[in-house]
Amino acid sequence: MRPVAVVGIGKTRFGAFADRDLRSLAREAVACCLEDAHARPEQVEALFLGNFAGPSFVGQSHLAPYVAEACGLTGIPATRFEDACASSGAAFYHGVLAVAAGIYDVVLVAGVEKMTSETSARVAQILASAGDLAGEIRVGATFPALFAMIARRHMYQYGTRREHLAQVAVKNHANGSKNPFAHMRKLVTLEAVLGAKPVAEPLTVYDCSLISDGAAAVLLAPLERAFEFTGRPARVLGVAQASDRLALEDKADITSFQAVRRAAEKAYRMAGVGPSDIEFAEVHDCFTIAEIMAIEDLGFVAKGEGGPFTASGATALEGRLPVNASGGLKSKGHPVGATGVAQICDLVEQLRGAAGERQLRRHSLGLAQNLGGSGATAVVSILGA
Amino acid sequence: MRPVAVVGIGKTRFGAFADRDLRSLAREAVACCLEDAHARPEQVEALFLGNFAGPSFVGQSHLAPYVAEACGLTGIPATRFEDACASSGAAFYHGVLAVAAGIYDVVLVAGVEKMTSETSARVAQILASAGDLAGEIRVGATFPALFAMIARRHMYQYGTRREHLAQVAVKNHANGSKNPFAHMRKLVTLEAVLGAKPVAEPLTVYDCSLISDGAAAVLLAPLERAFEFTGRPARVLGVAQASDRLALEDKADITSFQAVRRAAEKAYRMAGVGPSDIEFAEVHDCFTIAEIMAIEDLGFVAKGEGGPFTASGATALEGRLPVNASGGLKSKGHPVGATGVAQICDLVEQLRGAAGERQLRRHSLGLAQNLGGSGATAVVSILGA
Repeated sequence: MRPVAVVGIGKTRFGAFADRDLRSLAREAVACCLEDAHARPEQVEALFLGNFAGPSFVGQSHLAPYVAEACGLTGIPATRFEDACASSGAAFYHGVLAVAAGIYDVVLVAGVEKMTSETSARVAQILASAGDLAGEIRVGATFPALFAMIARRHMYQYGTRREHLAQVAVKNHANGSKNPFAHMRKLVTLEAVLGAKPVAEPLTVYDCSLISDGAAAVLLAPLERAFEFTGRPARVLGVAQASDRLALEDKADITSFQAVRRAAEKAYRMAGVGPSDIEFAEVHDCFTIAEIMAIEDLGFVAKGEGGPFTASGATALEGRLPVNASGGLKSKGHPVGATGVAQICDLVEQLRGAAGERQLRRHSLGLAQNLGGSGATAVVSILGA
Repeated sequence: MRPVAVVGIGKTRFGAFADRDLRSLAREAVACCLEDAHARPEQVEALFLGNFAGPSFVGQSHLAPYVAEACGLTGIPATRFEDACASSGAAFYHGVLAVAAGIYDVVLVAGVEKMTSETSARVAQILASAGDLAGEIRVGATFPALFAMIARRHMYQYGTRREHLAQVAVKNHANGSKNPFAHMRKLVTLEAVLGAKPVAEPLTVYDCSLISDGAAAVLLAPLERAFEFTGRPARVLGVAQASDRLALEDKADITSFQAVRRAAEKAYRMAGVGPSDIEFAEVHDCFTIAEIMAIEDLGFVAKGEGGPFTASGATALEGRLPVNASGGLKSKGHPVGATGVAQICDLVEQLRGAAGERQLRRHSLGLAQNLGGSGATAVVSILGA
C-alpha cells in the first residue's frame, strides 16, 4: 500500500435550493474540486459516488454515470456507493484503498443528496428506510425516536444531562455561524435549545441535524504524484469501515456504536496514531447525542464522559479538542449522501490553514467519523498535513 | 496485481416468491456460496453487495449491513453498489480488483433483488429510473420503448429481421428449460414469440426479460490461496467496467453500446485474449435485441451480423459460440441486482463442467457481460478454468 493524498476539494453551499437539481449540485462540487486540484476531467480514472437515496428523493437511479456525464467524465468506471448516511464515507474508504493499492492513480470521490424537494413526512420515511424496516421501523420508530431512546439510556447509564446534549447544538451553531457554506448560520442559546419544539423527548428540534441539499467532492492521488496537482496535499493516514446490526434491539449496548469502535481501532492502527494524538475532528452529529457518543467511541474521552467534556468547552473552537469546527451536520447541514465527503473537505481546509474564521490553532492531524443509520455502518478517516 | 479466483458460488432459484423476502434470498445464496467454498463466515473480510432498487421495491435501504448481519458477517465493511442492472457486475468488478491489489484476501460479492412484491406498473416505473429521468423518462419512455427504438434502428441500419430477435428468445428458452434454477422453464416457438402480445413494437412479451426475485453470490480469493477453499477454482482473467451517457438521444449511434465496447477492450487486454478465444458467454439479454448487440459489441461478430449469426444456430448450446447457456435474463429471469453475479455463477458452473444438461463441450474460457440501463454502465468479465 502506498500513501494517498487528497489533492483537491470542492463543495457546494448546503441548504434548501428549490431551483437546483441533484445533478447541478454534483457538477458544481466536482468542478470546484477539479479546479482546486488543477486537474482536467480526462485525468480522472474512476468516479466513486456516495448517494443515499436519490432514487427515492428525486426518482433517478443509475446516478454515477448520470453525474459522470454532467462532469465530463463519461467513459470511466462510475459507481454509486450506498451505506445510508455513511454513503460517501464508504465511497471515500473504497476510493482511498483503490489508490493505495495501485488500482488507479487519480480517483474522484463525490457525494450528493437532494432532499428538500420532498415533504418532510416523506423525508422522514425515506430516512427511516436506513433502519431495520421489519424490526423497528414498521412498529413506528423514526430516526429521532431511535436516537431519543439512545439519549435516554445514555442519561440513565452515565448521568449525562439534558444540558450536555444542548451544549452540542450551541457549540455547533456557533461554529457554523462562521462557515459561509453552512445551511443554518444562526447562533442558538442553551435556553433556546431546551425550550424548542420537542421532536422525540428529550430531543428538541435543535438537537436534530438539518434536511439539506448539497454536494462535495475530493480528488485522490498517490502522494508521490500529489505535487502535480497541488502545493497543499493532505495525506490520508488511516481509513477504515465497519458494520454492525441495524436494529437497536439487536445491539448489546445502545449507548455505544460497535462499528465506530471497530473502524476507529483499525484507522488508528493504520495511521500509527492514537486518540490522544488527534488535534481536531469532524464527527457525525446527526443528533446531539450522536456527537457525545462519537467522542466517547473514538476514544477521545472515557465512556460516559462525553457530556461533561462537551460542557467544559473542550470541544469548542478554542478548546483542547475542537469537534465539528465546520458546524457539523447540526448547523452546516446534512445532505445525507454528501456528508462523508464534506467532512473530508472540512478536514482538508483545516489542514491547509484555509478555514477562515473557523481556523484552528492546532491543525496538523484531523479525524472524520461518518455514521450510517443508527450505527450499522461507520467510516473513520485520519488525515494529516 | 495478483491472480484472483472464484472459490465458491451460490444462488437461489429465480422466480416469483410471494413468501420470500429480500434478506432470506440473499441469505440462501450466501450460505450456498460459503458451503460450496468450505468457508466460514469469519473468513470473509468484506461484503460487496449489488442491489439496484431495494429501497424502492421493498422499502429497505442500508442493505449491505442488513444482509451481512443475516449471513453472520457482522463487523466487516459491507457496502451496497448500485449501477442499475449492472449493480452486481459493478460489485464484482470492485471486489476482484480489491483482491487482485491485495486490499483483502477473501471477499464475498453478492447480488439480490426482490421485485415481485410490487405491481408491474410500479416495477416499470422503478426500472425506468435507470434511464435519464429528465431527458427521456418524463416524456414517456420506458425500457421496452427504448429498446424497441434500438431494435427498429438496428433493423433499419443492418437489415436485422424480426425473426432474428425472436430466435434469441427461442434459443434462450430452450436453454433455460434445462436449468433447474430458471424462472421460466418453458420452450417457446418462433411463431409464439412473433405472435405474442406486443409490448413495444417490434418487441412482444417474449422479447422481454422477466421480473424476478433472486440472489447470487461468489467468494473471491487470491489464486495462491484458492485451494484452501476448493479443488475447482475459476480464474478471473479479466474484468473491466465502463460508463456512457444515459439518454439514447445523447449517443452517437444507438445500435452499439460504447460502454460495452470500452469494457470489453479493457477486459480482453487484461486477460490477454481476444473475442475469437472466448468459448462461451453469458450476455445481458434484457431484451432480445440486447443479446444481438452484445455479441456484436463484444467483437464475436461484425456489427450488423448478430442477427444472422443467431439465426444460424451458432449461439445455441451446440453451436460454435454458445451464448446464454443458462437461459439468460430471458428465461432464467432478471432479478436486477442479482444478474451480474448470477452470470459469474453460470460461467463457473460451465468451467467446472458442472452445468448438467446445459454443459457445453468447450468450457475452458468464458465471458460475462452485464449492462446497466440502456448502456450507461457495462461490466465485462473473462473467466478461465
